[in-house]
Amino acid sequence: MIALKDRLPELESASRTIRVGISNRHIHLSNEHVEILFGAGHQLKKLKDLAQEGEFAAEETVTLVGPKGVIRGVRVLGPLRKTTQVEISRTDAFGLGIKAPVRDSGQIEGSAGITIVGPCGSITLTEGVIMAARHIHMHPDDAAFFGLKDQDRVSIETTGTRGIVFKNVLIRVHPKFRLEMHLDVDEANAAELNNNDAVQLVRQS
Amino acid sequence: MIALKDRLPELESASRTIRVGISNRHIHLSNEHVEILFGAGHQLKKLKDLAQEGEFAAEETVTLVGPKGVIRGVRVLGPLRKTTQVEISRTDAFGLGIKAPVRDSGQIEGSAGITIVGPCGSITLTEGVIMAARHIHMHPDDAAFFGLKDQDRVSIETTGTRGIVFKNVLIRVHPKFRLEMHLDVDEANAAELNNNDAVQLVRQS
Repeated sequence: MIALKDRLPELESASRTIRVGISNRHIHLSNEHVEILFGAGHQLKKLKDLAQEGEFAAEETVTLVGPKGVIRGVRVLGPLRKTTQVEISRTDAFGLGIKAPVRDSGQIEGSAGITIVGPCGSITLTEGVIMAARHIHMHPDDAAFFGLKDQDRVSIETTGTRGIVFKNVLIRVHPKFRLEMHLDVDEANAAELNNNDAVQLVRQS
Repeated sequence: MIALKDRLPELESASRTIRVGISNRHIHLSNEHVEILFGAGHQLKKLKDLAQEGEFAAEETVTLVGPKGVIRGVRVLGPLRKTTQVEISRTDAFGLGIKAPVRDSGQIEGSAGITIVGPCGSITLTEGVIMAARHIHMHPDDAAFFGLKDQDRVSIETTGTRGIVFKNVLIRVHPKFRLEMHLDVDEANAAELNNNDAVQLVRQS
């Protein structure tokens, strides 16, 4: 359960403003893969906390190697997961030479493969690489405020010269979550969004 | 005036389907700058025609050099223009370390600067680098069909998992134009669009 004090910014705005968090390419690792990439018994070191409770950026990074290109310095996010998952943008996918599907987190069956290289070893996944479907994290209080429930889909509208309406935005509700929309770098660039920009919820038609 | 035979694909569809052309980073050059970059008296060599009449991709490429990065192999588009203009995505702008504004083509006053390097020399622009505002080229017949006029703004809707509504899409009408929506690589990736995908015109609200 996230502490009330950590949710004050959104509760203080009468309209419960939804703010944007832009996800750069990153990787979630299983313990087995951490040990292959970084050595037996290795523990991820926290670099900084992320907005969602318990989630953190680790000091560790890996290199992604695809048939057409390489991306260095891909941030590991903690905590450990049961299954390794790589989240990249379509720009990254073209650069690596792979075809990653748009998926909700955790839905990796039949997704793209990739080779991941760390300082102590490498692994080659046959699946696990996705483009994360844009979504909004919500505390149950936020969901009640908006009249939404977990797994609903909404549209999100942005303003400005490059104003966009993002359709099919997944709602994810959990007592640990705080209100935040996650999208990837391509989506942010298309709409000229920066971290923490406010966006508007529109009911899906 | 574009020949009728070159407009048959769009005329053959009853709904006059608008198709997407994705603009990768490119540069339009003045004659003076062609001579500095490629040598005195140099003439651009046509690599292939583009969809819009008279426009072509040249064999020539240049290198863009910004304070934080370099992009090689940037395609020169012909024909020559009065003023040199560089069109990049926001991804490119971050990579180069410059801040390019979203502008309609030709509106470069106060836009970003860049150094451009060719095989025979280099130039440093104080302005001329933009992110091109998305727009739709239309023949006057198309404009009449849709009930639109030059400089109107519309919204364009795409389908699929990453379906988007692009607001503020500029309408450009000219007898030389054929029906085509131009957007940049970030916008295409955000919506998972490929070249020649069909999109739907929605009236701006």
